[in-house]
Order: sequence, then structure tokens, then C-alpha cells
Amino acid sequence: MIVRVPASVPTRSRTVVSGNFVMTVAVASEKSPSTFAQTTQALSRIDASLREANTDRKSILSAIVYLADMTKKEEMNRAWDNWVDRDNPPLRACLGATLEGDDLVEIIVTAAKV
Amino acid sequence: MIVRVPASVPTRSRTVVSGNFVMTVAVASEKSPSTFAQTTQALSRIDASLREANTDRKSILSAIVYLADMTKKEEMNRAWDNWVDRDNPPLRACLGATLEGDDLVEIIVTAAKV
Amino acid sequence: MIVRVPASVPTRSRTVVSGNFVMTVAVASEKSPSTFAQTTQALSRIDASLREANTDRKSILSAIVYLADMTKKEEMNRAWDNWVDRDNPPLRACLGATLEGDDLVEIIVTAAKV
Repeated sequence: MIVRVPASVPTRSRTVVSGNFVMTVAVASEKSPSTFAQTTQALSRIDASLREANTDRKSILSAIVYLADMTKKEEMNRAWDNWVDRDNPPLRACLGATLEGDDLVEIIVTAAKV
Repeated sequence: MIVRVPASVPTRSRTVVSGNFVMTVAVASEKSPSTFAQTTQALSRIDASLREANTDRKSILSAIVYLADMTKKEEMNRAWDNWVDRDNPPLRACLGATLEGDDLVEIIVTAAKV
Repeated sequence: MIVRVPASVPTRSRTVVSGNFVMTVAVASEKSPSTFAQTTQALSRIDASLREANTDRKSILSAIVYLADMTKKEEMNRAWDNWVDRDNPPLRACLGATLEGDDLVEIIVTAAKV
């Protein structure tokens, strides 16, 4: 069985659950010019999506972080380090890529079900 | 058990199946200068690969779409919206990245087995 | 149960194991100016990480390869072709992205447990 949580548009899901795995994706809801602020906000939306799927930050397996500007990676790291569960740190990769509009960060997370 | 469907070269697979999951990757077979045309073609190859693995579009969990030119994202969206099963939309992320040669789009899909 | 192998920093893992799946990520440990050399080294670290997780190269399902310079893709291919188990080739996608510092290649692998 696949559970799907709708995104803001009907042609995609924000979260999908299948078997023991949950995948979710987030950008910041407000397009602050600060990579730190956008990352903090995207991570908080990931928390909300994981909660909705009955799992949480401690169960994240991997996070792929795409940044519009890799020179701002330290800002992302700062937001990440504030947020991460240090007893259960995910695998993380961080890549510079072109994002849409004023997005500075986009994060794809795979978590286990609790 | 892992099932592997060969790609055009012997050193990689186009599709892999393990446990309840199927992963496949596609670019367009003809390198049209249109992102819309290349996306339509890549999605149709994904359909074929999923069929080969005994699953289908309705069971896709996630699609990561890489575009050579993010200013053409609307063309990709148009092809996606024509194609997607609206009752079963996947999680999707779309990133601008450098692709090989004349490729305008590359799509990595994870699906559940039916 | 989730098994996590620490990365060089406490806020992320290099490898995670959950259910039947292992995910690991690698860059080269020495920042040679050669994409061939860095890829060879990153792949060898992936071997080590998979071994640590009681799996191996033959069980890799997918590899996502990010290159700092796509014009060097042939060098990456050469390192890949030397390394890959030709009886068990993974699905592979290769994308150009901005990487950190002097990294020329970053590879994310998902493998099945043996």
C-alpha cells in the first residue's frame, strides 16, 4: 500500500509512504534572501511532514540538500546543526544546483517508519 | 534477490528491482531541442521500463527530474501534467544540473512493486 | 532498526542501514586535480563503507554520481568501468553539480544487504 500526502499542486505528492519507508521533500514557504532562514524553514516543514506520516527526525535515513548558492553552505550547515538529532544523524549530501524562482534550498528526505 | 535490466552499456543497469522497490532512469532517446518533447519521451521510456518490471505509473513513489535549463521548467511541467496519474501523483523534485551532450532532461524514478 | 556509521562530523552519518537497504556517500579523501583519481578513490571508500555494513559492490542497486565538471565525464567513466562488477551493474545517473571546495566527484550509493 502506498500513502500519498498531496503537495500544493494536484500532480505531485509532498510525502509518500511505502513499506517501511517515508519520503518527503521541502522548500522554504517564505522566500527569505537568507540561506540560513530558508533552510531552517524547510527543515521545520520536513518535521511537520514526517509527523503527518507518523515518523520523526530521529528516523531520518538520508537527506539530499540542494543549494542555489554553494558559497552559502556554511549557513545551511548552521541551520542543519541546530536542527539535527545528534544521536541519530542522517547520511547527508549537499549539492549546488539551479532551483526554481527564489528558492535557495530544497531538501529530499528518506526516513524509516518508527 | 536483485533483478537488473541492462542499459545500453554493459557497465550499468537501466532498471533494478530489490525487495518491494523498482528504480529506473531515463533520458529521451531522440535529442529534440524541446524540453517538452524530451520529457514526454523520457516519461514514455519510464513507462516501458516499469512495465518490464511488472509495475506501472500508478505505483511510482518519487521522481527526481534534472533539467539542463531550468528556464524551461514549464515545458517539463506540461509534459508531466499530461502524463501523471492524478490519483497517484509521485513526490517530485526538479533541479537544474549539467547533463550530458544534448540531453535536456534526466529522470530517476523509484516505484513500488504492484 | 537503523544502524548509523558516523561521518567525519558528528551531525551526519556516512552510512545508514535500514531494513534490507544500505545507503552510503563518498567523496575522495585526497583532492587530486584529476577526476579519474578522485573517482577511483571515492569508489574505493564506497567499497570500504559497504564492507563495514556487511554488503559489497555486487549488491549495489543505484549510484548517483555528481561531477563538478561534466566535461570530465569520460574520466569518471574510466574509473567506473575499471571498478564495476560487470555481472551486477548498478543503475547509474551522472549529473553536473557544484561541489564543495576541491571535490570533483561525490557518489551516493544504495545497496541491498547481502
